[in-house]
Amino acid sequence: MTRTIVASATREIVIGFDQPFCVIGERINPTGRKKLAAEMQAGNFETVIKDALEQAACGATMLDVNAGVTAVDPNATEPALLVQTLEIVQGLVDLPLSIDSSVTAAIEAGLKVAKGRPLVNSVTGEEEKLEAILPLVKKYDVPVVAISNDETGISMDPDVRFAVAKKIVERAMDYGIKPQDVVVDPLVMPIGALGDAGRQVFALLRRLREELKVNTTCGLSNISFGLPHRHGINAGFIPMVIGAGMTSAIMNPVRPQEMEAVRAANVLNGTDKDCMTWIKTYKDYKPGEHAAPAPVAVNAPGDAGAAAGGRRRGGREARRAAG
Amino acid sequence: MTRTIVASATREIVIGFDQPFCVIGERINPTGRKKLAAEMQAGNFETVIKDALEQAACGATMLDVNAGVTAVDPNATEPALLVQTLEIVQGLVDLPLSIDSSVTAAIEAGLKVAKGRPLVNSVTGEEEKLEAILPLVKKYDVPVVAISNDETGISMDPDVRFAVAKKIVERAMDYGIKPQDVVVDPLVMPIGALGDAGRQVFALLRRLREELKVNTTCGLSNISFGLPHRHGINAGFIPMVIGAGMTSAIMNPVRPQEMEAVRAANVLNGTDKDCMTWIKTYKDYKPGEHAAPAPVAVNAPGDAGAAAGGRRRGGREARRAAG
Repeated sequence: MTRTIVASATREIVIGFDQPFCVIGERINPTGRKKLAAEMQAGNFETVIKDALEQAACGATMLDVNAGVTAVDPNATEPALLVQTLEIVQGLVDLPLSIDSSVTAAIEAGLKVAKGRPLVNSVTGEEEKLEAILPLVKKYDVPVVAISNDETGISMDPDVRFAVAKKIVERAMDYGIKPQDVVVDPLVMPIGALGDAGRQVFALLRRLREELKVNTTCGLSNISFGLPHRHGINAGFIPMVIGAGMTSAIMNPVRPQEMEAVRAANVLNGTDKDCMTWIKTYKDYKPGEHAAPAPVAVNAPGDAGAAAGGRRRGGREARRAAG
Repeated sequence: MTRTIVASATREIVIGFDQPFCVIGERINPTGRKKLAAEMQAGNFETVIKDALEQAACGATMLDVNAGVTAVDPNATEPALLVQTLEIVQGLVDLPLSIDSSVTAAIEAGLKVAKGRPLVNSVTGEEEKLEAILPLVKKYDVPVVAISNDETGISMDPDVRFAVAKKIVERAMDYGIKPQDVVVDPLVMPIGALGDAGRQVFALLRRLREELKVNTTCGLSNISFGLPHRHGINAGFIPMVIGAGMTSAIMNPVRPQEMEAVRAANVLNGTDKDCMTWIKTYKDYKPGEHAAPAPVAVNAPGDAGAAAGGRRRGGREARRAAG
């Protein structure tokens, strides 16, 4: 059984086919968040602190940390800012972290200060990336996200994306990195632009699980880009990718509809033992109720958000026998 | 490609792997609805009429019609009551109907008056049932729901349930009934009682699709029996069964959360061409809005409810790149 171990100073989490879906909180990322970027550049981490606590309270399993404020010279400035951000976050919550940067020097600086066993986000199939990132992954003995694109970009052919993922896994093995420490991102396209995007990723996830036997992840909300009511599309996508074998996703754990879908899929996938998290989360569910994140969840990561409540109106229990 | 054709007097619907999920409205069924049973026995069809119009408005693809009011002698009374109910419903909406009864005489009486090509619900693997129902299915050239249990009851072993389904399909072929006219119900167990119920049905659906190449259905809400916030479990189950190959379900189309999950899964499964139904349904989506069923949907079955609106709060668009 493929087991990818990530850990904070005090908690170890297993990503695997028989584990609750791993929700990697995406919020601590200044990309496209000008206000956050400006704050971080000014040394103000109020939003980072709020996002860390809120995502943990909503049930994130681990937190992605990105400090790419797109300064003039990221190589000079990003390492120090990422280190500072990682230290603040790991001082606040005991969730494993994902060190997210396109700057190799920033990833290495992060690896030096991150406690436990962080996830490196990410390497691609590009030669330059493979040669820069894989030695660090081996040196620090950590898992890495492998994005299935290369110098030629993102192929629209799922077979090519699978081949790129396979190449990265094989190259990692050349460096002495176990396949279970490579978490493949098959790349999710917007369904509004590519009608086949869903079926492509479901088929890819099956092959990655059955042929490469690796854990998988994705930038979940990409699927709904450009469509109205994106949370509804995201919430339908989550059970489908979990059913297809995906074991983690980089997503926003603060969204109740998406987290409800994760919790339901864990129940249906048999990874929420005795439905305990579901029952704990919804036992007092009231029609139209908006439950607030409960700090208790900070101490219960991996339960996929025992805090954030559902929001649908209840109603007549279905009473019909099968068929 | 497996195509099960059902039809009303004026509209034909195809159930198939490449079609939008077929939502069979479950509401017109007095089982466990004492008030409805009493009304129907008294010749009052107000609730039947309301349920027919409302389910059509919410986007049901077809309607199940059951008149089992559990009289002293169903054989004597149910045929006439089912005929009366079918005639009222097909006079109101132009959706294909499912003739639902455990009384053979009622099914035959229904087949005599139902317009178009109704679905017979149901036959099982019990010898007595096979010999009573299959000749009618052949005589009237209609499709039938095949429930995978037999004299020994419902097996907890999915291989046995598959074998029963296979036996029914083969027996139907002996009667000259094509496999594409047998819609298999693999039987859904409550996940709260059987933690493996989800994975069992997903595996069964794959085998039914890949080995028997038949269309499938189920009594969808059974999965959440006994759990809190059942709509959340049902809404997570729908995308998972659709992803596993299920092509229809007997469910309540009046539930916005479940119908939103059907619409999202159709988009992600590539059966909502250009996301037209999704966009039409949610283009004016407002946070927390409760859209009412729109009669227009009566003329748009198969679009899985362009009417009932979503209910989640909207929010910040995810802005993050994959991985």
